[in-house]
Amino acid sequence: MKITAVKLAEMIGATVEGNPDVIISSPAKIEEAGPGSITFLANPAYEHHLYNTGASAVLVSLDFAPREPVKPTLLRVADVYGTVSNLLAVYKQDEAAQTRRAVSAHAAVEDTATLGDNVRIGKFSVVEQGAVIGEGTVILDQVYIGPNVTIGKDCVLYPGVRVLRDCVLGDNCVLHANVVIGGDGFGFAPDPETGRYNKVPQIGNVVLHDRVEIGASTTIDRATMGSTVIHSGVKLDNLIQVAHNVEIGENTVIAAQAGIAGSAKIGKNCRIGGQAGIGGHCTLADGTQVQAQSGVINNITKSGAKLGGSPHMHYPDYLRSYAVFKNLPSVVNKLRKDIAELRRQIGQ
Amino acid sequence: MKITAVKLAEMIGATVEGNPDVIISSPAKIEEAGPGSITFLANPAYEHHLYNTGASAVLVSLDFAPREPVKPTLLRVADVYGTVSNLLAVYKQDEAAQTRRAVSAHAAVEDTATLGDNVRIGKFSVVEQGAVIGEGTVILDQVYIGPNVTIGKDCVLYPGVRVLRDCVLGDNCVLHANVVIGGDGFGFAPDPETGRYNKVPQIGNVVLHDRVEIGASTTIDRATMGSTVIHSGVKLDNLIQVAHNVEIGENTVIAAQAGIAGSAKIGKNCRIGGQAGIGGHCTLADGTQVQAQSGVINNITKSGAKLGGSPHMHYPDYLRSYAVFKNLPSVVNKLRKDIAELRRQIGQ
Amino acid sequence: MKITAVKLAEMIGATVEGNPDVIISSPAKIEEAGPGSITFLANPAYEHHLYNTGASAVLVSLDFAPREPVKPTLLRVADVYGTVSNLLAVYKQDEAAQTRRAVSAHAAVEDTATLGDNVRIGKFSVVEQGAVIGEGTVILDQVYIGPNVTIGKDCVLYPGVRVLRDCVLGDNCVLHANVVIGGDGFGFAPDPETGRYNKVPQIGNVVLHDRVEIGASTTIDRATMGSTVIHSGVKLDNLIQVAHNVEIGENTVIAAQAGIAGSAKIGKNCRIGGQAGIGGHCTLADGTQVQAQSGVINNITKSGAKLGGSPHMHYPDYLRSYAVFKNLPSVVNKLRKDIAELRRQIGQ
Repeated sequence: MKITAVKLAEMIGATVEGNPDVIISSPAKIEEAGPGSITFLANPAYEHHLYNTGASAVLVSLDFAPREPVKPTLLRVADVYGTVSNLLAVYKQDEAAQTRRAVSAHAAVEDTATLGDNVRIGKFSVVEQGAVIGEGTVILDQVYIGPNVTIGKDCVLYPGVRVLRDCVLGDNCVLHANVVIGGDGFGFAPDPETGRYNKVPQIGNVVLHDRVEIGASTTIDRATMGSTVIHSGVKLDNLIQVAHNVEIGENTVIAAQAGIAGSAKIGKNCRIGGQAGIGGHCTLADGTQVQAQSGVINNITKSGAKLGGSPHMHYPDYLRSYAVFKNLPSVVNKLRKDIAELRRQIGQ
Repeated sequence: MKITAVKLAEMIGATVEGNPDVIISSPAKIEEAGPGSITFLANPAYEHHLYNTGASAVLVSLDFAPREPVKPTLLRVADVYGTVSNLLAVYKQDEAAQTRRAVSAHAAVEDTATLGDNVRIGKFSVVEQGAVIGEGTVILDQVYIGPNVTIGKDCVLYPGVRVLRDCVLGDNCVLHANVVIGGDGFGFAPDPETGRYNKVPQIGNVVLHDRVEIGASTTIDRATMGSTVIHSGVKLDNLIQVAHNVEIGENTVIAAQAGIAGSAKIGKNCRIGGQAGIGGHCTLADGTQVQAQSGVINNITKSGAKLGGSPHMHYPDYLRSYAVFKNLPSVVNKLRKDIAELRRQIGQ
Repeated sequence: MKITAVKLAEMIGATVEGNPDVIISSPAKIEEAGPGSITFLANPAYEHHLYNTGASAVLVSLDFAPREPVKPTLLRVADVYGTVSNLLAVYKQDEAAQTRRAVSAHAAVEDTATLGDNVRIGKFSVVEQGAVIGEGTVILDQVYIGPNVTIGKDCVLYPGVRVLRDCVLGDNCVLHANVVIGGDGFGFAPDPETGRYNKVPQIGNVVLHDRVEIGASTTIDRATMGSTVIHSGVKLDNLIQVAHNVEIGENTVIAAQAGIAGSAKIGKNCRIGGQAGIGGHCTLADGTQVQAQSGVINNITKSGAKLGGSPHMHYPDYLRSYAVFKNLPSVVNKLRKDIAELRRQIGQ
């Protein structure tokens, strides 16, 4: 997509400062941008790049006042990040259009599967009996869709995704490469006589509602009975573990390598940091924030709590305790010295 | 499978209270169960659901005394969890029977591979030269079985599993989607002159004994030389890392995202929590219990130890120390105030 | 490869003690080695095995003095580990030669893809339009190479690897099974009105330089704009998360299950332990060492720092504080008792 700065400004509602006729062909980072690219400046820490960038145009906020002369054309907008996001979406769509194909001759789709209009199925992908795939959904190469799986409209499943039998996806979901939906929950009953573990069959499924996005190699286990449920708008990063019978509320966001143990119920609009753990059967109120690497071990009933530490505590309290911990040997030595000094004084 | 309550009671050795002729077609969770379903009540915390459930029948223990009137038919058994497990197994078998197929026309099986009776190989799966697969084993779609791999009887390998060259599986193993068995161990020797790392080739293999079950996207590396060994009855959850030359004893159970570093030797009947780490070359005695998120850094010689913290300590001690840590600023302030007060008194 | 001890000694520059004509056919661990195998002794802790091993030959250092009689032939070398590594490499090459094939009839390679000489493409692998694969590179089965990917010479990609559109690999890279290169970065902008998250498209790529090795199921996300960059000689273990726009310097080594958050810049020759986390936008100086399970939360400017704890601190300080923490209840009780005693004395 090649376009003049003034044309682009019209599209995004920007005002133009500098050459309106410069040609823009792609977005780039401010420190790497060259001729033909558009970049942006939102964080003041990057301002110095503005005076050296090779970009042809730069998005800035309405009230930005440069301290030095600027070569690129400036496009002023009210919401820089929002505009960047829209702009990137346009280029991304260009890309997606290129990969869209019909059902590949190398795919294996069972007769009893149902494909909506404009469904694309990639090479060496499998769609098993009874699966239903909604219109506009793109299934890339080497994907497995198990028996009786239902997938909504306009989803994208990247290579190597596995969606196992009976699982359900809503509309506009995105599953990145090698995601596994519907592996068996980890359920075993010890046999007290032999010490062996007998498998508790896992016959439930996983249900993803609309606009759920799941990062590469994340695993979501099927429920023992009933469903593991991921509500609308949830965003999961890479390599996350979601155990059986978990429920995650709307618009909750979880960073990479976090783990949610069995039957935990996470509220809406929570934010859970990377490598954090949520214990089995814990319920987290809406808006709970869990710090990276911390461990939540029981119910959080107050909405909006900030948690840190393992086991968890109120995060600001954790930091206060940790500040003392950092100097613990000298803190304790000072107390001991003070006591020894008092003892000496009394002895006199 | 549709069956009357009285027929089912015969099958599972239950006594019947209420309508013996109600038809039961599937299991369900007590809070979601509708007509035609059977559910169970084992945990008293769920008792209130019993009085509202739409289930047609409920499994309860022999001595359970309802506090309110109950609509569903009650089936009384000695061991509620055990019976549920058996019941689910029956339904699961129904499912498994549906997916069983012969060798798919879309699979690639080398001439020199040996398949036992009733082996099923799914679409786009590969079985390389010299591999041997025991009777009744089901290999689902898009699985990779490398050269000279040996797999026992009645195993199930889910889509996307990779078993690399020379690895060995016993009987009745289950490998969930995207498991990797036999990736190279992480072995590099620094070159002191260049600062580069030279690869130490990893020419050993991985050996799984019988009844091992491995969760989705778990990785088990091959030994440098010799074997990484997982003994009978071990159960591993999802996204676990097992490094080269590790040995895990019988019936040990490990929760999701735990990591076992190189050459560690885990005893029998150990329980290791989620996101825990076991350091390289550590030996853990039988029955060791490791708390979630903790880190074990040297040998544990006493059987049955409970460990927590990073580095690990006796878990109850960890909790006691952590209880003080939680209030550390006020504990220290109080001590300082007391000392100041004493100093003032002495000064008088 | 069968060879006499004396011939092998010539190849590796060893001096021979004992039977020079014994035949050696494969390497093995000292405690498992049998006739025909060669093993090594480098760590004195294993010396007792030397007197019982069934090996035909053992590599030892020039100055090793046995305390008991030794049956196998001894081959003395200056650098035992280095020699073992070379020896294993020879056997591994033998193996690699066996798996090398031409482009499989079961692969799907687009017409616009370019394959160098001696490229091997395995079964059910996909090479999309515009991809370029350098000479001697081996792509095993069920691998996905996306549109416009560029791969250098002599790389090995194991089954189930996914390299998504536009990513670039240098020469001599090794990607183990189920690695994902170029999944979308985790970028979402909250909509303050609805609480929903809007995706920030990720249109950058991932660039791996030469000699990078990546463990099974590790994920490396593409940059929002620009590139996520892994410099030459970096070695990553299994199940690691590398987020968008991260940069990792030459010869840095990272252990399993570590996580590197967005835009972090890791220096050269760093060593990062298993399950450690590096916070977003943190810069780590060259040679930084991060202890397993710790969390780095801001810039490390001094080269060679050793870090531990979460949040991180100087690792030796962490251990000193932790030593007090271990006894915290008794340390505090002792202080309280001393103060009470002083108070009593003053009261008298």
